[in-house]
Amino acid sequence: MAQNTFGHIFSLTTFGESHGRAIGGIIDGCPAGLEIDEAFVQHELDRRRPGQSTLTSPRREEDNVEFLSGIFEGKSTGAPIGFMIFNKDQQPEDYSAFADIYRPSHADFTWEQKFGLRDYRGGGRSSSRETASWVAAGAVAKLILQKDNIGIQAFVDQVGTVTLDKNYHLLDLGKTEKSPVRCPDPETSKKMERLILGLKEKGDTIGGSVQCVITGMPAGIGEPVFGKLHAELGKAMLSINAVKGFEYGSGFRAASMKGSEHNDIFKKEAGKIVTATNFSGGIQGGISNGQDIYFRVAFKPVATLMTEQETIDNEGKSAKITGKGRHDVCVVPRAVPIVEAMAAMVIADYLLLAKVSRL
Amino acid sequence: MAQNTFGHIFSLTTFGESHGRAIGGIIDGCPAGLEIDEAFVQHELDRRRPGQSTLTSPRREEDNVEFLSGIFEGKSTGAPIGFMIFNKDQQPEDYSAFADIYRPSHADFTWEQKFGLRDYRGGGRSSSRETASWVAAGAVAKLILQKDNIGIQAFVDQVGTVTLDKNYHLLDLGKTEKSPVRCPDPETSKKMERLILGLKEKGDTIGGSVQCVITGMPAGIGEPVFGKLHAELGKAMLSINAVKGFEYGSGFRAASMKGSEHNDIFKKEAGKIVTATNFSGGIQGGISNGQDIYFRVAFKPVATLMTEQETIDNEGKSAKITGKGRHDVCVVPRAVPIVEAMAAMVIADYLLLAKVSRL
Amino acid sequence: MAQNTFGHIFSLTTFGESHGRAIGGIIDGCPAGLEIDEAFVQHELDRRRPGQSTLTSPRREEDNVEFLSGIFEGKSTGAPIGFMIFNKDQQPEDYSAFADIYRPSHADFTWEQKFGLRDYRGGGRSSSRETASWVAAGAVAKLILQKDNIGIQAFVDQVGTVTLDKNYHLLDLGKTEKSPVRCPDPETSKKMERLILGLKEKGDTIGGSVQCVITGMPAGIGEPVFGKLHAELGKAMLSINAVKGFEYGSGFRAASMKGSEHNDIFKKEAGKIVTATNFSGGIQGGISNGQDIYFRVAFKPVATLMTEQETIDNEGKSAKITGKGRHDVCVVPRAVPIVEAMAAMVIADYLLLAKVSRL
Amino acid sequence: MAQNTFGHIFSLTTFGESHGRAIGGIIDGCPAGLEIDEAFVQHELDRRRPGQSTLTSPRREEDNVEFLSGIFEGKSTGAPIGFMIFNKDQQPEDYSAFADIYRPSHADFTWEQKFGLRDYRGGGRSSSRETASWVAAGAVAKLILQKDNIGIQAFVDQVGTVTLDKNYHLLDLGKTEKSPVRCPDPETSKKMERLILGLKEKGDTIGGSVQCVITGMPAGIGEPVFGKLHAELGKAMLSINAVKGFEYGSGFRAASMKGSEHNDIFKKEAGKIVTATNFSGGIQGGISNGQDIYFRVAFKPVATLMTEQETIDNEGKSAKITGKGRHDVCVVPRAVPIVEAMAAMVIADYLLLAKVSRL
Repeated sequence: MAQNTFGHIFSLTTFGESHGRAIGGIIDGCPAGLEIDEAFVQHELDRRRPGQSTLTSPRREEDNVEFLSGIFEGKSTGAPIGFMIFNKDQQPEDYSAFADIYRPSHADFTWEQKFGLRDYRGGGRSSSRETASWVAAGAVAKLILQKDNIGIQAFVDQVGTVTLDKNYHLLDLGKTEKSPVRCPDPETSKKMERLILGLKEKGDTIGGSVQCVITGMPAGIGEPVFGKLHAELGKAMLSINAVKGFEYGSGFRAASMKGSEHNDIFKKEAGKIVTATNFSGGIQGGISNGQDIYFRVAFKPVATLMTEQETIDNEGKSAKITGKGRHDVCVVPRAVPIVEAMAAMVIADYLLLAKVSRL
Repeated sequence: MAQNTFGHIFSLTTFGESHGRAIGGIIDGCPAGLEIDEAFVQHELDRRRPGQSTLTSPRREEDNVEFLSGIFEGKSTGAPIGFMIFNKDQQPEDYSAFADIYRPSHADFTWEQKFGLRDYRGGGRSSSRETASWVAAGAVAKLILQKDNIGIQAFVDQVGTVTLDKNYHLLDLGKTEKSPVRCPDPETSKKMERLILGLKEKGDTIGGSVQCVITGMPAGIGEPVFGKLHAELGKAMLSINAVKGFEYGSGFRAASMKGSEHNDIFKKEAGKIVTATNFSGGIQGGISNGQDIYFRVAFKPVATLMTEQETIDNEGKSAKITGKGRHDVCVVPRAVPIVEAMAAMVIADYLLLAKVSRL
Repeated sequence: MAQNTFGHIFSLTTFGESHGRAIGGIIDGCPAGLEIDEAFVQHELDRRRPGQSTLTSPRREEDNVEFLSGIFEGKSTGAPIGFMIFNKDQQPEDYSAFADIYRPSHADFTWEQKFGLRDYRGGGRSSSRETASWVAAGAVAKLILQKDNIGIQAFVDQVGTVTLDKNYHLLDLGKTEKSPVRCPDPETSKKMERLILGLKEKGDTIGGSVQCVITGMPAGIGEPVFGKLHAELGKAMLSINAVKGFEYGSGFRAASMKGSEHNDIFKKEAGKIVTATNFSGGIQGGISNGQDIYFRVAFKPVATLMTEQETIDNEGKSAKITGKGRHDVCVVPRAVPIVEAMAAMVIADYLLLAKVSRL
Repeated sequence: MAQNTFGHIFSLTTFGESHGRAIGGIIDGCPAGLEIDEAFVQHELDRRRPGQSTLTSPRREEDNVEFLSGIFEGKSTGAPIGFMIFNKDQQPEDYSAFADIYRPSHADFTWEQKFGLRDYRGGGRSSSRETASWVAAGAVAKLILQKDNIGIQAFVDQVGTVTLDKNYHLLDLGKTEKSPVRCPDPETSKKMERLILGLKEKGDTIGGSVQCVITGMPAGIGEPVFGKLHAELGKAMLSINAVKGFEYGSGFRAASMKGSEHNDIFKKEAGKIVTATNFSGGIQGGISNGQDIYFRVAFKPVATLMTEQETIDNEGKSAKITGKGRHDVCVVPRAVPIVEAMAAMVIADYLLLAKVSRL
C-alpha cells in the first residue's frame, strides 16, 4: 500500500519535506554483496543539485548524502540501506506569506483538501526537493545495472518550441553533460539556453521534455499483465514532479501509423534474435525483447513565476502572489538525472523479479 | 507483488488465456452493501465484445460473465467476488501453425524468453481477451462511482491521421455509443469508418487514440509521492494491450508552453473553489482538485496483418506468416470500454484509500 | 493489501463461500516449467475431504479441482493458475434457520459487525470449506518443494487430554495416513479414536493439536526483520480456522528453560555445519539453519454442537440453537493436510524470495 | 514485499544495525491531524531502554528519538514520519573477536548463509536494538488508539519456572511498571527477581513469557481470510527477537477442551452484545467481537552467556566463546513495551482498514 514506497523487490521508501530538518529514505531489497561506491552516489546527487549553472536555481543545497546502515566494509549486506540528506539551506522565512494562499498550479490546495492541513513551507512534501532521495537510490540501482552492462542515458530533447528531432542513434550522448541544458546537440542546446535566459528576464517559465535510452537490456524482463515493464516505467516517470505525459517506442506517433509500417520484423544477427526496426521501443507485451528501450517524458512549465499572478486564499478571497526565492525557469535540465534514477530503480527491481520467473 | 493483481484496496486478480477453458478473476476489497447490477456488468462486457459491427472482429465470444461468490441477495458481502467468463469459441486449430514462429510485434518471443516456454494458442495470456475480465471488474467499480455521481466517459479521438480536434466540452459524448468507431462527432466518425474499411480490404491495420473524461470528482483524491493519481491512471492505461503513450491535462503540449499560459488560476464560483482553465487535467501534485480529469491514450496498429510478413522461427530460420482468424483492423473502438474500466478501478480504489487519510 | 491473498511471490488469492456455486483461487507466481501432477493435487484434496471415516463429517463434497489456466502441455507456463472446486452438495435448507441467530463461538456476529450484512448459509466465507482451495494451492507448492527434496509431514499429537509425547524422531511418520485420526502412534491413535467416538455420541466436540516437520531445508531461507520464516509460518497457521496457538522449536517450553540448556551448539558433521540439539526448531533469527523445522498448532473444539445451546438473535433476544447437518467432532485429523498445505506455500514462497538475496 | 516493512495502511519501515551510526524508520499512513506527543514517544522508548535496573543490561543507550518529517505545528500532516535514534554507545571493539565465529543460537550463521556476508558487530541487523524503532512507531500508534479509548497493557507472567497463574482480571495492572520485572503481582515479582539475580551470578540466562490485554476494542475489526486479526497479532509477536510461541484466548489449553466448555455464549448486557465467557480471546473468525483481546508470547532464554561455550568458526573449526559486554539475563521485562508497541501497530492499522469494509 504504502504510498511513499516505490518498487517490489528493490524498493525505496522516502520521507521529508522541503524545509524540514532532513529528507531521506530506506532502500530495501538491495542484494547483498554489491560494492557501494558512495562517491558515485554523491556525483549523481550533484547532477540534480540546484545552482549548477546560471540556468538553474541558484540555491546551494549541497545535498550531501549520508548512509546510515546496510553497508559494511564497502558492500551492501542485504539489510536495508538508510540514508539522509540534511537540509542545510532552509530559509523558511521565504514562505510564511504563503500559509493561507493557494499558489496556482501547485499542490497547496489539493494537499489541504486531502489531509485537512498542510506544511506550507516551500511546498512541504510536494516539493521537488524530494527527488534528491530518488536520485540517491537510483544511483545505487545503477550500480546493480553496471554489473550487467546496462546503461541508462537521458537527455533533453525539447524546451518550449525548441525541439531536437534527431533519432538518438545520430546523437553523441556523451555530450549531454557538457551542455548546460543537458541537450547533446550543441546547436540545439544553444537555442534552448537562449530561450531559457530570455524567459528568465521576463520572470516566466517554460516546459520541455526528456528522452531516455536504456541499452544492454537482456530479453525477458517484465511482469505482465499488471506489471508490464513499460507500465512500470510510465508510472515511475509520472511520479516525477511536473510530468504530464509518457510515451515509449513509437509513442503517440503510433496512433497514426499502419501495421505494415509499425511491425518490427524479427531477424537473426550474429547469433542473436533482433528486430529490423524498433517501434516497439524494446518492449513487446510488457517484456523486454533485448533491443534498446527508449521513452519520452513531457514536463509542464514551472508553476512559480516571478511576475504577479491572481489567486485566492483559503477563505476564497482574491489575492495576488509573486514568486520569491530561487526557482528554475525550466525543470528539464535538472530532470535528466531524476528520469535516469527512476528508470534505474525500475530496471534493477525487474531484473530481480526475473530471477523468480522460472524453476 | 503479484503481477496479475491490480489495485490496492479495490483490487482485481485475473487468470486465463485466450484459448483456455475460461478466463476470470477475483475482485477483492469491494465494500459490503453495494447493489450488484449484473445486467449492467454484462452490458459493459457486450460493449467490449468482438463482432459488434463490420469494423470489429467477427468472432462471437458472447462473453457471459458468471459471478460465483461475494454477492448475497443482490448485494456485495465484503467477501471476494469471483467471476468467470467461459471461452465458448476457442477454435485452437487456428493457431497450431504458430507454435514455433514468432509473430512480429507480438509477445511470442518475449514471453518465451521470460518463461522458457509459452502457450502459443492465440497469444495465450498476452491476448487482449484478458481485458474482458478487466471490463467486468471495471463495471463493478463503476457501480461504486455511481453512488458518488462520478462519471467516466471515453471516446475515440484519433484513427490513423483522422483526428478529432475539438475540446471535449464541445462534443456530445452521448453520441459515442451510436458511432461504430465510438467517435462522438458524426462527421469525423464517418471518416474513421472509411479509413478502417479501406485498410481492411488491404489486410492492413491502423493505430488510434482514446480520450477519457472523469466528471464529478471530489477534490483530495490521490496518494503522493509514489501513488499520484495520474501516475496510477497512467499505469492502468499502459497496462492495456497495444498502448504506447499516456498524457493527462495539457500532456505533451505542456512541453512547449510557458508558465504564464499554463497556470490554472484559482477562483471561487458558487461557493466552490475552481480553476479558470484546466491544463492541470483535474490533478495537481498527484491529487484531484475537483475539476474534470481528462487524459489521452495512444494505441499502436494491430500487429496481426492479413498480408504476408517476414519473420523467423524459434531456431532463427526465416519464415513467412499471414494472419488467419478474426482480428480487428483498429483496436480503439473496442478499447473505449477497457479504458473506462481501468479508470473506474483506479478511481474506486483511490476513493477508498482517501477514507484513511485523516483521523 | 488484499486480505484474501496469501504469499509474496508464490501467492494464492481465493474466493468462495460454503454454499455458493463454487470456491476456488488463483495461484500467481508459480515458476514456469513445473510439471503439474493433477492427480497428486486431487489426492491432497481427498485427504482433506469430509466423509473419509466414521470420525469425520459424513458430507460427500467430492471436491474435484479443475484447473482453468496457467498450465500448457502439463507444465506451468508462468501465467496465473486459476482453479475451481464446484460445490456439489450444497443443501442450503440446512441453514435458513440461522439467518437471524448468532451461533456461539462462530463468526456470525463478527462478520455482521464488520460488513453490516452476512451470507448466513453454512458460515458463508468463514466456513472451513475455504481451506479446500488452500490444500489445492499447497499441493502445487509441494511439487516445487519436491524438486529440492524438501518434505513436509504433519500429524496429530493431541486430541483432548490424549497426548502423544514422543519426539517426532521416535515416530514412524509413514503410519500417519493409516490412522483415522492421523496420529502415527497406533496405541495413541486408538485412544484418540475412542475419545472422539465417545463425544460424538454425546453431541459434544473436542480440541486437539497438530505437529508439523519440514525436512531437507537448505540454510539461509527467511526474510527478517518483518518476514521472519517462523513469523510467516505462524501467520499461515493462525489463518487456519479454529487455530488458537502456534509454537516452533522449544516453543512455550522455552519460557522455563535456561540459556545453558537451550543453546544449540554448532558442530561440523560430514562437511556440513549442524547443531547438536535443535531447540531452535531449525530457524535462528528468522532464517533457516538447515536443521529440521518443526512446530505445533493448537485447535479449539468445534463450535457446532449437536446439543442445545443458549444464544441470542440479532435483536438481542434469547434463542436456543442445536447443530444440524454434518459436522466433525474434532478438526485435527482433517487439519493435517491443511497445515501441510499452508506450510508448503510458505516454504515455496520463501525459496523464491531467497533467490534475490544476493547479487 | 519489503521485508523490513510492517503493516498495511499504518506501516513502519526500518533500517539500522546494532553498531551502525543510527537506527530509525519511516511511519507511513499515519492519518493527518494526530497530535504527536513527542514526550510520550520518548517515555515509551525509555521503558524499553537497557539499564533501567540491576536486572537489565547496564548499557546506557539513551535512545533519544528525533522526528525529521511528517509533523507540522505538533500534528501529523499525512506525510511519512521519518525518525532516527542515534547510536551513542557503540563500543564496536567489544565484538571484533566474533567476526569469524558463529555464536550458538544467534543469527550469525543464518544471516551469513542467506547473504554471503554479515555485519558481525553486535549481531548487526539481527540485534534486538532494532526494536527501539518499533517502540517509537508503536507509541505513535498508541496515540491513535487513545482517541478511541483502546488500551494496551502487557506484563510478565512467567520467568523460568516462576509463573503468575491468576487471570488478568484479578490483577492490578497499574502495578506492572512498579515491578522491576514488570510483573504486576508483587509476590511473584519478587520471586522472579530472585531467580534472575541468581542466574546473573552464574552467568546463565532464562526464558519467560509476556501476556498482553487489549481493552476497549470495537467489534468488527479484522481482515479474514488471510488477514485475521489474531494471525496478524501472531505475526507481529513472532517478529520480536527470541519469541518461540504465540497463543490467544484459550490458546494451547483449547486443545484439551470440549466444545461444551469452550463455547462463549452470547448475551445482551446494558444494550450491548457480549459473551458470558471469553475463551475466544475477543476474536471470532479473525474479527474482534468487542470483548477484551488477550494473548501470550513465549520468549526463549538469552543466547549470550557469560560462561564459556563450545562453538565453531566459519571454517568449521572448534572454538570457544564467552559473552562479553552488557546483556540481559532475561528479556521479558524489557519485552513488555515491545509487545505493546507491536500490538498497537496492528490495532491502529486494522482500525484504518475497517474504514473501507463498507460503502
